[in-house]
Amino acid sequence: MDFRLIQTCPDSKARAGELITPHGSVPTPVFLPVGSQATVKTLTPEELKEIGISMVLANTYHLYLRPGIGMIEKMGGLHEFMAWDRPILTDSGGYQIFSLAALRRVSDEGVLFRSHIDGSEHFLTPELTIQFQEALGADVIMTLDECPAYDDSLEKVQKAMTRTHHWAERCQRAQRHSDQALYAIVQGGVIPELRHQSAKYLTSLDFPGYAIGGLSIGEPKETTLSMIEETVALLPEAKPRYLMGVGSPEDIIEGVARGIDMFDSALPTRVARNGALFTWQGRHNIRNAVYSQMDKPFAPGCDCYTCRTFSAAYLHHLFSCDELLGYRLATIHNLSFIHNLMQKIRNAIFDGNFSSFHDNFWASYQPTNEQTRLDQKRKWLKSRNQGQ
Amino acid sequence: MDFRLIQTCPDSKARAGELITPHGSVPTPVFLPVGSQATVKTLTPEELKEIGISMVLANTYHLYLRPGIGMIEKMGGLHEFMAWDRPILTDSGGYQIFSLAALRRVSDEGVLFRSHIDGSEHFLTPELTIQFQEALGADVIMTLDECPAYDDSLEKVQKAMTRTHHWAERCQRAQRHSDQALYAIVQGGVIPELRHQSAKYLTSLDFPGYAIGGLSIGEPKETTLSMIEETVALLPEAKPRYLMGVGSPEDIIEGVARGIDMFDSALPTRVARNGALFTWQGRHNIRNAVYSQMDKPFAPGCDCYTCRTFSAAYLHHLFSCDELLGYRLATIHNLSFIHNLMQKIRNAIFDGNFSSFHDNFWASYQPTNEQTRLDQKRKWLKSRNQGQ
Repeated sequence: MDFRLIQTCPDSKARAGELITPHGSVPTPVFLPVGSQATVKTLTPEELKEIGISMVLANTYHLYLRPGIGMIEKMGGLHEFMAWDRPILTDSGGYQIFSLAALRRVSDEGVLFRSHIDGSEHFLTPELTIQFQEALGADVIMTLDECPAYDDSLEKVQKAMTRTHHWAERCQRAQRHSDQALYAIVQGGVIPELRHQSAKYLTSLDFPGYAIGGLSIGEPKETTLSMIEETVALLPEAKPRYLMGVGSPEDIIEGVARGIDMFDSALPTRVARNGALFTWQGRHNIRNAVYSQMDKPFAPGCDCYTCRTFSAAYLHHLFSCDELLGYRLATIHNLSFIHNLMQKIRNAIFDGNFSSFHDNFWASYQPTNEQTRLDQKRKWLKSRNQGQ
Repeated sequence: MDFRLIQTCPDSKARAGELITPHGSVPTPVFLPVGSQATVKTLTPEELKEIGISMVLANTYHLYLRPGIGMIEKMGGLHEFMAWDRPILTDSGGYQIFSLAALRRVSDEGVLFRSHIDGSEHFLTPELTIQFQEALGADVIMTLDECPAYDDSLEKVQKAMTRTHHWAERCQRAQRHSDQALYAIVQGGVIPELRHQSAKYLTSLDFPGYAIGGLSIGEPKETTLSMIEETVALLPEAKPRYLMGVGSPEDIIEGVARGIDMFDSALPTRVARNGALFTWQGRHNIRNAVYSQMDKPFAPGCDCYTCRTFSAAYLHHLFSCDELLGYRLATIHNLSFIHNLMQKIRNAIFDGNFSSFHDNFWASYQPTNEQTRLDQKRKWLKSRNQGQ
């Protein structure tokens, strides 16, 4: 058994459960910090544990390019390599190839791409991603998917979905290690009918878990939420549901309300390094002059190491001077905030008051302005696509 | 009593003692990591303590420019601001003004300089540096000195020395807080006669400690060592001797052999961020391909957090990817190495076998090539002088 559903919310689709993995169990809903290159940027494994992180994500694409899958295998696998003994999820490389690499050619056989680091050419197939992920040894591994852009044509989105389905079957057949849970990825762009088809098709193949891919890539937020609803409606109750690439507090709480169990995103750690810190009132930037003389912690009442130990003025000073310690302390704060949020959400589900927790959250939380968010996201995606 | 001399070496001038400060006692010989901007780059106070660091240095010049002395005073002083409850030494700002800032004019009254950050103009006097250092609240504070370049004319060096003496007297008169130990700085360039004069003059003023300034700024190493000897010969036995800006393992051991009790330098932390790690065989760069497949720790037998937890291959990978965690782990290793060296030196002095420890060190340690070292040092000083 890989997943145990423990409690559901009477007023929404929110649910609390537990993933069972060879490296221990993970309470859900859960947020996975991103450690693309076998490191959650700036932090040690001990710090992640002190924050309460129970599972991290690593990117097969990045690790394949550097230091190489064979190297990590020789070092005893990814857990050993990065000195992390709790559960790990690796993605298949699909999303990075379609967003980060210079894409050369997609065929039914696989994807030819160029490394974003040195331009070298590589070919990835469903069979190879499984072979790589088995060598890395993560607890949860992912099928290879084709990710169309949010504004691609219907025909292109449909073709990518069908290919994703065939690739999922090939991944399933290629799997040799029974101790890793292989999750399939639902695609279908922003077209409800395609999302239904994809969820139904993949469900018929009986995977131990289902991810929702191809969202939060530049489409309006209401579209994201409605696509989650359309997809979740056709996924089995008994299996974990994983919303890929989503990780702002406001998106997590809405994802949970729609039945999501797992989230991952580089957002909390990435914005931390830009000085943007989470609070229950929204995201505030520590570089703002208002913090330069603040003798209190950045978020009074927050029990993270950063807020327990330093004043907002000190944190502001570190960012003013571009001191690396600032990036660390901000990362600790943001991951602690998200972990705290997940715990509060889970407790609320158990206590049967998730709906009022949800409403209270929104009564104080000021989300990032939608247009600003979209502009930033699209700009960021574009800069990645240009091989930055 | 600020300093207790406990043991002297029968074969050299090496000695072991203890500084007594309001924030606890410090075993000597001691190395002070540099926390210019109220942070030892990349590390938390807890990590410094875990390494065993008992005292750090912070730069008055940097803190004056950012976040400002008044700000730190308002936050309760430097200890409170940076959350470090062990002893701190602040320098006077002299060295930074003469090496880092765009110098505008030196007069007997003080120094007019331009900030290396925004070009703004500032005037520093002996009285002001004492006022600033009293506001910061360090345990050991320094007199303002004028630092000539290593290749300046005799006349210029002599004039700078005389001015340094007058400034030292003014600093002494300006001091109001009796709980801070004010050390004087011996100058005199690379001219033995001037070093003698400077040491004698400042000793006559009876400071609680004496620093040797104006060395390790580009002159050949044998000159550095002979200037240390010339100076120490005229300093009182009962007072601590502090060699400013020196911190490589090879220079520390030679400094101790010549009677030095305190060292500070940004070198161990700066070279760590470039991937250069200390071993008992010399400095090795973790970026070297030889480490890419090394499943063992970088320095087998080293008990620092980095070597206890991660393989050399992982550390190599972090540096290949420019991951911030790499800079942290390398910094931890280098400071642990230096702390370990200081402990071994101190124990050897107590055990009466410092000379054989010194010889054993040199039997295995390969120092950085002298010409390379000089070229790097001069290049670095030059780039700093150009306002980098």
